[in-house]
Amino acid sequence: MKHDVVVVGSGVAGYPAAIMLARRGLKVAVVEEHYLGGECTNYGCVPSKAFYHIAEAARTVKKVGGSAELSWESIVEWSNSMVEAARQGIEYLFESYGVKVYNGKGVIKENKRVRVKNGENVEIETEKVLLALGTDPRPLPGLEFDGKLIVSNREIFQMRERPGSLAIVGGGVIGVEVANAFVNLGVEVTVVERSNQILSFLDSDVAQAVKGHLRRRGVNVLEGVEVAGVERGESGVRLKLSDGKEIAVDEVLVAVGRVPKTSGVNLENVGVELDNAGFIKVSPRLETSVPSIYAAGDVVGGPLLAHKAMVESMIASKNITGMEAHNIDYRLVPLTIFTGLEVAYVGYTEKELTKLGIKYVRYKVPLNFLSAVKIKDGSYSFIKILVSEDSSKVYGVHIVAPNASEVISAFIPVVIGKMMFEDVSQLPYPHLTVGEALREIALLMLGEPVHILVRK
Amino acid sequence: MKHDVVVVGSGVAGYPAAIMLARRGLKVAVVEEHYLGGECTNYGCVPSKAFYHIAEAARTVKKVGGSAELSWESIVEWSNSMVEAARQGIEYLFESYGVKVYNGKGVIKENKRVRVKNGENVEIETEKVLLALGTDPRPLPGLEFDGKLIVSNREIFQMRERPGSLAIVGGGVIGVEVANAFVNLGVEVTVVERSNQILSFLDSDVAQAVKGHLRRRGVNVLEGVEVAGVERGESGVRLKLSDGKEIAVDEVLVAVGRVPKTSGVNLENVGVELDNAGFIKVSPRLETSVPSIYAAGDVVGGPLLAHKAMVESMIASKNITGMEAHNIDYRLVPLTIFTGLEVAYVGYTEKELTKLGIKYVRYKVPLNFLSAVKIKDGSYSFIKILVSEDSSKVYGVHIVAPNASEVISAFIPVVIGKMMFEDVSQLPYPHLTVGEALREIALLMLGEPVHILVRK
Repeated sequence: MKHDVVVVGSGVAGYPAAIMLARRGLKVAVVEEHYLGGECTNYGCVPSKAFYHIAEAARTVKKVGGSAELSWESIVEWSNSMVEAARQGIEYLFESYGVKVYNGKGVIKENKRVRVKNGENVEIETEKVLLALGTDPRPLPGLEFDGKLIVSNREIFQMRERPGSLAIVGGGVIGVEVANAFVNLGVEVTVVERSNQILSFLDSDVAQAVKGHLRRRGVNVLEGVEVAGVERGESGVRLKLSDGKEIAVDEVLVAVGRVPKTSGVNLENVGVELDNAGFIKVSPRLETSVPSIYAAGDVVGGPLLAHKAMVESMIASKNITGMEAHNIDYRLVPLTIFTGLEVAYVGYTEKELTKLGIKYVRYKVPLNFLSAVKIKDGSYSFIKILVSEDSSKVYGVHIVAPNASEVISAFIPVVIGKMMFEDVSQLPYPHLTVGEALREIALLMLGEPVHILVRK
Repeated sequence: MKHDVVVVGSGVAGYPAAIMLARRGLKVAVVEEHYLGGECTNYGCVPSKAFYHIAEAARTVKKVGGSAELSWESIVEWSNSMVEAARQGIEYLFESYGVKVYNGKGVIKENKRVRVKNGENVEIETEKVLLALGTDPRPLPGLEFDGKLIVSNREIFQMRERPGSLAIVGGGVIGVEVANAFVNLGVEVTVVERSNQILSFLDSDVAQAVKGHLRRRGVNVLEGVEVAGVERGESGVRLKLSDGKEIAVDEVLVAVGRVPKTSGVNLENVGVELDNAGFIKVSPRLETSVPSIYAAGDVVGGPLLAHKAMVESMIASKNITGMEAHNIDYRLVPLTIFTGLEVAYVGYTEKELTKLGIKYVRYKVPLNFLSAVKIKDGSYSFIKILVSEDSSKVYGVHIVAPNASEVISAFIPVVIGKMMFEDVSQLPYPHLTVGEALREIALLMLGEPVHILVRK
């Protein structure tokens, strides 16, 4: 069986390229050892946002004194139906474009040959390979995953019943998203973060805002604390913390990072180089150290985000096809955190600018003048824009607000210099949206704000 | 009492100018006969979106088999608290900038003198006047408002108890927004629209999508039907319809348009000209036929939208100050409809293009490939882009999707030619947002879609 391209992995770094390549007329095979769609579709973005959607709704009903009765089983079932639909979408496109799917683990035999490890051990000859291998949850010594009491993102959206209490070890993006959703669904949640700030890569004002928000919603957020001891019982776990305290919970979610899924793929033997952290080294064209073997998505490192993976997948497909492709600018990959009071940012953090020695001016405005924000329970919202001294360059935009994940897209043109604050200040962005903030902050930067009080 | 500017009306067309003028050091008075904030804040956008927020949440809980118990009184109370907060925001800014508020009806005595009609009948001398008079609900003969059984937007968000059933006469924006919110809150809703399509100014595919959505949610949508007879009873209303049917309901909301609030202001005597529909005629500078008297917002006609009013208010304030100001491009005022499956569009409709004889190409794509859309119950979502034959000009963008009201802002740069589809196609818009659609549709237009199937 001879193919033009074999894509190993059908997640967000794999399927877009597979589809694009097949649409262009190439003979494409995808090797997938698990479900189509990979981590994001099956165990990440999709179920996480499904839970989030229901959890926010439950909370909204309660905030006006109402009560929401929900069956955990139904939430899981509905979330699974969303995952299933997303998988089927990919399957349908694969079928429509004639992408052949092989179930099994893809092993690179040599440059132009991929073995599908399963009962039959089929070998596929191919001109080119795209490695979209993804990542696994990072295991934590002492808190080894058992899939029942100590789980990862793979099991957390699949639990048969609602845990009474949940400890989340790791206050990163996965940790805070699960904390926010689960506390709104009536779970007692404790977040245990080793460093002295959850979301430690963020500027502290942004991280503090999320922390305050989680605490107001009832999450017990512990920072600067590690798990020092673990006792697994019949139906729960007792965690000894480094500050001497103990917590007893029904379940533990460990979300302390990701490790690239490169083992057993035979990369070392074909000569695909990895970096020190184990990610695959790629050129800006997304080619590995072995010509004709490309890689994209989480497995090449950088921000482990689905949209970054998707754009890489598109770029890799163009380079594989021999088309002209742009290079991705990683500073333009927005980070989004879905926590009710959402976080979205693009560009640099203040921390990074300081480290790089770049001088910047900060405009930071609270957004509670927006009724859209107040209605959506976002009284602590703000936007922070980091610009060069003459405002001609935008180094970073940080939004902490309901709907920030959508709103950031309207800010991107300003960040890439396609729109100036002067343009933005004149536009009638729709009223009763969070996006209105764009006009107001532009007006502020031009010295002409309406809603933001400036004292002379 | 001598002022530089008197602003008559403190709604979204009045307060931004008052604040901007005062911030620039002018002595500003605002004359307001009712509550600060005008129609949008008190009886429109704000309470409507407050109800919408709770109603969508209740529906979301129910769609996974849950139940939501809500007290109507609490919803009204909370909605009022949102309105109150918005009013207080304006009040606070007025106080901070020294804007003097006069309570009473503003009557223009002569060019430079405004009388405040109330107990004291104060007269204010002023250099300039901004008329931000707003509109009233249009009364419908036979269905005269009584504030109890037959109500307008002024009472609909203030009802003491949940009506069992509600007839909405008029399937415009207010009508469909109330229908969507109320049906989700357990009210039996019938919409009676005289023309053969609700939202009759929209292209029929967009209007049909909203109709289908409302019907799936349980709204009884009647088109091409008028109210032929009315019987007000003790505790309800019986409507005879032009098709011979009758409906008996607890309440009737009449939302058949707006009329400019120009009566009793003495405009005719000072020579401020009105157009045939009774709206104040203004130049692109927003000056009326009388020099030094300006007008903005609903009272000058055009799209009766808060954000259009706000931008006009800003422009008027600049012209009043003698600053350089841009002219508003009314084609860039997005229309937004908050109905779960939301509508947002900017630019031309197909109807308008056809009428104008402008040739266009239509790209229309369903958005149900987006998990964000499916999760938010938007399976019937689509985006329609109308462009010139070479795609260099964008005539219109129509979004029918959850969160469309936010997403439209990310499309504006493309509409105004600040970004090309080529730029957009490369950007990593965040995953699990509706805004991702932007990249996909750009890819489609460039012949390189991922999720939208193209058959060769």
